[in-house]
Amino acid sequence: MASDEERIRTLIERWTGAVHQGDIDGVLADHSDDIVMFDVPPPYEGVRGIDAYRATWPPFFEWQAQGATFEIESLDITAGGDVAFAYALLRCGTEKEFAERPAERLRLTLGLRKEDGRWTVAHEHHSFPYTNEPQATPATAAEDEIRAVHQ
Amino acid sequence: MASDEERIRTLIERWTGAVHQGDIDGVLADHSDDIVMFDVPPPYEGVRGIDAYRATWPPFFEWQAQGATFEIESLDITAGGDVAFAYALLRCGTEKEFAERPAERLRLTLGLRKEDGRWTVAHEHHSFPYTNEPQATPATAAEDEIRAVHQ
Repeated sequence: MASDEERIRTLIERWTGAVHQGDIDGVLADHSDDIVMFDVPPPYEGVRGIDAYRATWPPFFEWQAQGATFEIESLDITAGGDVAFAYALLRCGTEKEFAERPAERLRLTLGLRKEDGRWTVAHEHHSFPYTNEPQATPATAAEDEIRAVHQ
Repeated sequence: MASDEERIRTLIERWTGAVHQGDIDGVLADHSDDIVMFDVPPPYEGVRGIDAYRATWPPFFEWQAQGATFEIESLDITAGGDVAFAYALLRCGTEKEFAERPAERLRLTLGLRKEDGRWTVAHEHHSFPYTNEPQATPATAAEDEIRAVHQ
């Protein structure tokens, strides 16, 4: 019988495959109704609920259709009996983008809970690291200050 | 006796307070030796291990000393018996930054496990949402494409 960690690994690999195939039913198959996603772009308060989560995917699929990859490079899972978390680095971009920024990875963290004996994704956090864009956000301003102090 | 959720809430509130006070011992008090942090800036592969995690804080404290806040606005915790995750929105910035971007929040996700009966932070993911900076990253390029398609 598969361990909880193995089941969660299978779930995440299946989800990643569904994302890459633009298969919305597959993307939603193991997600909770009350999922909260911190997506790469705003909303600042997060994407809340399965309907809002579903709505984020079609624009991503359109972008991806130009030939972008969405694949796991590393995946670490910590599973208890009924709660788990996982974090991963993914290659997400086009060949042109990888040529320009070969080291950049999408960072992904998942929170899962077991519902009726089945692992379910209740939280996702997607981000790219901040790099030196000119327009200030709190993050970029903080980093600019740090660079100014330390260089 | 405090529930696991209450203990984790106390841990995270104490950690947030230590960050705001620039108290490095307090920041490290409940973190595992093998912590992996996806920080706001690179490294792309994450900050790995407690020594690398420790080293990220002094520059942040210097930036914060100009009068920035670091405070929890919302915090959701899902705790099992020995594994838990939490996600939060924080106000992190200066008054000037909040005046310019009042809705922007730091998004924080934590993965925890119980070690010798004590909750320990094994993973952190910090990010600000991507907004429309001119220099392209895979994220920004994706969003620019999405905007171009949908506007």
